[in-house]
Amino acid sequence: MKKIILKSALLPAKASGAVRADILIEGSRFARIGDNLPAGDDAEVVDCSRFAVLPAFYNGHTHAAMTLLRGYADDMPLQKWLQEYIWPFEAKMTAMDVAVGSRLAILEMIKSGTVFFADMYWHREETMKAAEEMGVRASIGVTFAETLMSAEMIEKNFDFLAAHTGESERVRLAVMPHSVYTVGESLFRRCAEFARAEKFLFHTHLSETKREVEDCQKQYGCSPVRLLKRAGALDGNLVAAHCVHFSDDDMKAFVDSGATAVLNPCSNLKLSSGIPPIHAMLAGGMRLALGTDGASSNNNLDMHEEMKLAALLAKVGGTAETLPAFDALRMASVNVARAYGIPDAGEIKEGALADCLLVRLDNERMVPAHDVVSNWVYAADSGCIDSVICNGRFLMRHRHVDGEEDILNEAQACAKRLAGR
Amino acid sequence: MKKIILKSALLPAKASGAVRADILIEGSRFARIGDNLPAGDDAEVVDCSRFAVLPAFYNGHTHAAMTLLRGYADDMPLQKWLQEYIWPFEAKMTAMDVAVGSRLAILEMIKSGTVFFADMYWHREETMKAAEEMGVRASIGVTFAETLMSAEMIEKNFDFLAAHTGESERVRLAVMPHSVYTVGESLFRRCAEFARAEKFLFHTHLSETKREVEDCQKQYGCSPVRLLKRAGALDGNLVAAHCVHFSDDDMKAFVDSGATAVLNPCSNLKLSSGIPPIHAMLAGGMRLALGTDGASSNNNLDMHEEMKLAALLAKVGGTAETLPAFDALRMASVNVARAYGIPDAGEIKEGALADCLLVRLDNERMVPAHDVVSNWVYAADSGCIDSVICNGRFLMRHRHVDGEEDILNEAQACAKRLAGR
Repeated sequence: MKKIILKSALLPAKASGAVRADILIEGSRFARIGDNLPAGDDAEVVDCSRFAVLPAFYNGHTHAAMTLLRGYADDMPLQKWLQEYIWPFEAKMTAMDVAVGSRLAILEMIKSGTVFFADMYWHREETMKAAEEMGVRASIGVTFAETLMSAEMIEKNFDFLAAHTGESERVRLAVMPHSVYTVGESLFRRCAEFARAEKFLFHTHLSETKREVEDCQKQYGCSPVRLLKRAGALDGNLVAAHCVHFSDDDMKAFVDSGATAVLNPCSNLKLSSGIPPIHAMLAGGMRLALGTDGASSNNNLDMHEEMKLAALLAKVGGTAETLPAFDALRMASVNVARAYGIPDAGEIKEGALADCLLVRLDNERMVPAHDVVSNWVYAADSGCIDSVICNGRFLMRHRHVDGEEDILNEAQACAKRLAGR
Repeated sequence: MKKIILKSALLPAKASGAVRADILIEGSRFARIGDNLPAGDDAEVVDCSRFAVLPAFYNGHTHAAMTLLRGYADDMPLQKWLQEYIWPFEAKMTAMDVAVGSRLAILEMIKSGTVFFADMYWHREETMKAAEEMGVRASIGVTFAETLMSAEMIEKNFDFLAAHTGESERVRLAVMPHSVYTVGESLFRRCAEFARAEKFLFHTHLSETKREVEDCQKQYGCSPVRLLKRAGALDGNLVAAHCVHFSDDDMKAFVDSGATAVLNPCSNLKLSSGIPPIHAMLAGGMRLALGTDGASSNNNLDMHEEMKLAALLAKVGGTAETLPAFDALRMASVNVARAYGIPDAGEIKEGALADCLLVRLDNERMVPAHDVVSNWVYAADSGCIDSVICNGRFLMRHRHVDGEEDILNEAQACAKRLAGR
């Protein structure tokens, strides 16, 4: 079994403290954390005296292959954006394009410290393969959208899911009905029942825009949250993305269910969807996690930005004390891992999955060293990350990821062809 | 005269286009931009085929030496923050500490692409010296605060200013009364008259918090903006920081005056001060620029973050079309330069001051290349910056700044001593 010792690493101990320790990784897990751990002959020893070892990021909601649309259409009204730019571009995307876009997305995520992503898109086999090959964790959606799919395609989705239960520890499938405006109540019910029975996570967009909530009210006489409840889809197995427009009743129903809300603050601002009431959500006891959404509405997949933005936006409507740095970091790491049913991940402790970041303490943004967690959340950016470990394996060393030049070149060529330039 | 040719650089041409060109720098200015410019024997030729050449950032409001307090106290109520942490720490800071903190700040700004900063703090000689030595531009405040200074100290400030008119092209002094809650109406009037007569820029904090506006209303019977107007301080020579709580009347008075508002969105969120009504300000025709504020309330000096955050927050209360990427970039560059009276700066054009960034096009966040400005504003972070040029001189090459290790070490030691750890 492969062993790594992270020697003399700075480790955040609590809200604003840190200790120096050695961390022994055996196989895919943190085996021991302590002083002067013996290396043995078979361990790779990594000097971490210049590094803080911090939890890796987990991205609770994205559309990976949409990195190919980064910067293709910005700063325009939603309908024009969708109808004149996004949909015509996407209509040309083949399975191979999704493979290329997924690789670009995973590269960008690794370079910004993310080792897991939940993905809702098409040609899921390609994204699964890219995640498997590049060494990250993923929850890959089998996407349902009745407005875009025939009854036959929907049945094929269920068949695909039934054939793929429990295939990989690291990359798993999930049931992902797109939203209440593309999937009807009865299909929501069937998806939720299927997911529970077959032990798949259940993920959907929820209450992203004011219009979605108003339309749902008109069509169903209730809010999107209440509709999910009615369809038997609001439970601890649900991970819902966005959750911008929640009433007090929605919050209460959500808290009672044990579901998790994955906020995407950057995308919600950029598309002018609104600011989720983070302070009220926290006060009410909602389970909160973070995601980036796709690169065409963000325009990156940088969980560090989401973490800082969430901590800042929480203070609007709250106080300067709302969502302190330590808790914001947890929203971007362990809270996502728990929501997606990855046990013992997102924290650096004995027995947990060996996912972590080596963050440079000698970067100007990490100086002075009054509080390493505060520096990391509020002052750092992705450039402070030196190396990334997932499942006990280095995915990035000294800011280099194997094969990155090829990934960039193929993405550039692919995007150019799709844009017809 | 020193010559540099930036060869085959990608140059944003308009809102969403870009061209390849050579850029000839002679001395401190862009001399020519065109195809296949002859190098001559005396020019340094820099291959920019992998780079976009973009305007450098100008930081319209900060307190540089407060980098020493980065992470020292976060996520707490304002009064506790000030009284128990910030003020006791600052009380111990000597001129030498301000020198150390200023160098750390300037290092961080260079590494994130900023070549100018407007600074309001104490021991201004030290910050001036650091800016001169490290090669950046600066507008260094002579700070007035009646609540903290004797009448004698205030007179000494005016003497100091009178002795220092027009000393350096790159580093200049400015008149900086702190705010309407620390400086009375008559001193505001005197400062404004002095600044106009002696040709100094005039800078102050304005309408940062709801409480400041309410207290001003109680004390003076008008808003802070109206108080400045009454004191003869609201004119084209004024650059006001924050401007979060502006009424319609404030906006109108401000627009009529020709003054510039420097927004600090990150700091305003972090301290729970609020979100400035950017959409309404733009619609009303206000001159807007950006700044970072100090590192104890941000917690970095990264103008890229402010630029993206401003573009995002403008869309709240506006639409997805409000403050597009190209305009957000101008708010962080040329708008700041103009506000601070630096003519022909902040844009890449013939005759302008040679300040610019070499941004890597082969960074994953700049791929694909649908729109270089959109990628820069919405997708990039500081890690995409390869090199920084100010006044025709490289301040950073391939992410290295001369002397950075020493600056970090002295800042670390100094902050540790001040924190008593």
